[in-house]
Amino acid sequence: MSHATTTAKNRSAVVLFSGGQDSTTCLAWALARFSTVECVTIDYGQRHRIELVAAKRICAAVGVRQVQIPCDSFRALGGNSLTGDEAVANGLNATTGLPNTFVPGRNLILLSLAAAYAWQRGAHDLVTGVCQTDYSGYPDCRDTTIQALQAALRAGLDSPLTIHTPLMHLTKAESVWMMRDLGRLDLLAHSHTCYNGQVPPCGTCPSCLLRAKGFAEAGIPDPLLG
Amino acid sequence: MSHATTTAKNRSAVVLFSGGQDSTTCLAWALARFSTVECVTIDYGQRHRIELVAAKRICAAVGVRQVQIPCDSFRALGGNSLTGDEAVANGLNATTGLPNTFVPGRNLILLSLAAAYAWQRGAHDLVTGVCQTDYSGYPDCRDTTIQALQAALRAGLDSPLTIHTPLMHLTKAESVWMMRDLGRLDLLAHSHTCYNGQVPPCGTCPSCLLRAKGFAEAGIPDPLLG
Repeated sequence: MSHATTTAKNRSAVVLFSGGQDSTTCLAWALARFSTVECVTIDYGQRHRIELVAAKRICAAVGVRQVQIPCDSFRALGGNSLTGDEAVANGLNATTGLPNTFVPGRNLILLSLAAAYAWQRGAHDLVTGVCQTDYSGYPDCRDTTIQALQAALRAGLDSPLTIHTPLMHLTKAESVWMMRDLGRLDLLAHSHTCYNGQVPPCGTCPSCLLRAKGFAEAGIPDPLLG
Repeated sequence: MSHATTTAKNRSAVVLFSGGQDSTTCLAWALARFSTVECVTIDYGQRHRIELVAAKRICAAVGVRQVQIPCDSFRALGGNSLTGDEAVANGLNATTGLPNTFVPGRNLILLSLAAAYAWQRGAHDLVTGVCQTDYSGYPDCRDTTIQALQAALRAGLDSPLTIHTPLMHLTKAESVWMMRDLGRLDLLAHSHTCYNGQVPPCGTCPSCLLRAKGFAEAGIPDPLLG
């Protein structure tokens, strides 16, 4: 794993790309560092299909190849009949308050799928927007977890894979500044992060509030709201 | 990870269960050690649906709960249009000779899905039939890979998960003897391992030959052929 900003112009990278603010920032970061960049978007039954539309639009805007890989496992594993949990009508688990498609350790599976794709493409660099600063409740976003997963993927793929996590230790404001410094704030006009899937964003859900806080602290207007 | 034969009668275990010879042996091993055993079968588009039927039949025979989790990612990631590889009509990749649903590092994903399920069920013991003795060509079957994955899953799930690999260092003959010693050779009459999906098994594919060699070396007749 690496937070380094070394240039690797002779290498190709795969970005695990949801179309949200963090992975869009990672895409811009990767474009500045690697000679070839591809995006992998996992369609795991996101409640808001607009996320997939945003991901596709951003990849087209920067001219990178994007592949969409389905994964119907999360819907089956999420809080539903398999485990006996009750789901409520808004798609949130009644017990945990997490989306029904939330699965513990989900990032491990998403990154493993992206790593399998990267292996097939001969890419040894995988970029993901996981960030332990804002998501302390999710153990699969932690630096130690990503380091351990990198070791497992290196062994299991017999490949010198590096998982890059450029946002791991950044605040949301620092992430906005990174995007400014990369000169690609414009891309965030397409990135979708509202939990309620609204366009324009609802402005009141936890995701909208977190995003607004980051832009406010960075002293930069959110291009999505411009 | 543990090859130990300690009894854990107060614990529940999840077996990653394909219905093949190895995972059937693991199921018998787990039943002898844990107070509660469940099986997770991943439906990733196996070319021979008879494997899923065999898995279900064996679970019913021993009276354990079985859940089937779909995963359509492998079919998308396998040698096909995503990666530009040519697939041949018999479902094998023209370049590698592996099934089209083969994905590098596949065991990492299968085990991560099973671990997510185990977490939800409060089980901290996961059993898998991976074996580096016979499958030296698959880096995700190696002991070092499973150890690294265990570390990643422990970190990512924040859970004291143990991945048990009772067959890791056994020959096929030793695996047959284990089943004899567990008194459950009868279960192997249901287990399906023929690459060609034939009942009775074709007897000529690599999987049939490997199975036959194991029983021959063990000096025990294969109950599937009885």
